Amino acid sequence: MEKKITKATLGRIPLYLAYVKSLPETTTILSSTSMSRALGLGEVQVRKDLGQVSKSGKPKVGYKIEELIDAFEEILGVKEKTKAVVVGAGKLGRALIDNDGFESFGVEIIAGFDAAVTSPKSVGKIKIYPVDELKKIIDDNSVTIGIITVPRTEAKHVANELVSLGVKGIWNFAQINLDLPDGVELQQENLALSLAHLRIKIRNK
Amino acid sequence: MEKKITKATLGRIPLYLAYVKSLPETTTILSSTSMSRALGLGEVQVRKDLGQVSKSGKPKVGYKIEELIDAFEEILGVKEKTKAVVVGAGKLGRALIDNDGFESFGVEIIAGFDAAVTSPKSVGKIKIYPVDELKKIIDDNSVTIGIITVPRTEAKHVANELVSLGVKGIWNFAQINLDLPDGVELQQENLALSLAHLRIKIRNK
Repeated sequence: MEKKITKATLGRIPLYLAYVKSLPETTTILSSTSMSRALGLGEVQVRKDLGQVSKSGKPKVGYKIEELIDAFEEILGVKEKTKAVVVGAGKLGRALIDNDGFESFGVEIIAGFDAAVTSPKSVGKIKIYPVDELKKIIDDNSVTIGIITVPRTEAKHVANELVSLGVKGIWNFAQINLDLPDGVELQQENLALSLAHLRIKIRNK
Repeated sequence: MEKKITKATLGRIPLYLAYVKSLPETTTILSSTSMSRALGLGEVQVRKDLGQVSKSGKPKVGYKIEELIDAFEEILGVKEKTKAVVVGAGKLGRALIDNDGFESFGVEIIAGFDAAVTSPKSVGKIKIYPVDELKKIIDDNSVTIGIITVPRTEAKHVANELVSLGVKGIWNFAQINLDLPDGVELQQENLALSLAHLRIKIRNK
């Protein structure tokens, strides 16, 4: 019964899910045309993607938002929670800890760590621990994702430590090139790139 | 004398610039092969892009990092500063204000605004102002970019205000679909998408 989802479609599903969740609650039906326009993607591509995902929707009539959300969430497996820790509890680290949008994609930040912290202290719902408790917390909670928000000079050291403790993925906000071993996935983040792209769009008008 | 840079190449230059800047200072020469591997881009594409950009580099021998940085910065016009304001000085807004990576791409955040602030207060090098000073600061400083880090429910209202005050681009961190008039560019940000992609990569291993 299960339809095969291609890797390329899978890569776009988080974007689709975020989009349908950003719509006002009064919107209950969505056409592939309006979704493709809003996201700046090709209409044929979006129609094909939704065709792979939705059981009952029809391109011309539209797709039920509620059904799309269920289908996207099932494909992404958001109900199986993946646990993450944030290393570096400065402004950015705390902003990420505070972000309530990650759970929609099945990722739960369970703790923060900071070199300047000497005893656990609460930030909202979670705690910031001294860095020497990293091993215990990662082991006890089967953490699979490490989020790095330390200064650039500390990032390699922190990445090595996270890898040695068994995390399977690193989301790196430090602007330094990390060389991770096979079996550990890297997601490099650079907020400045988005701003650079916006600036290019404005300048090219 | 000036070579024509295609739009697609231009879109990748911020990424290239961020990458060469992330290398250790001891690295002075870079081949297009190692850059394409590090960034996960096709080798032919990177070689063609660098060929459009660099005057003296050779694909096999390599490119001088210093020359690449100069060329990238000239193309992006980072010396002509673009001014931005942040509306919503919560944790995320303050993390952005604190980010020192934006100036490398020619964008300077000159002020923050927050509904909870009643008189200007300093955060690092800049000030957070009450929202009713938005018009004055934008006018006085020829601000062209508005960064929205207010809660989702406030984002449309803030976007309308920024547009009416003449900004040319909006970088929106609120998870809501903004409908901007022609002539105003939107860069929608969703940090959760990066995390969702990392999770997909881990699950598909």
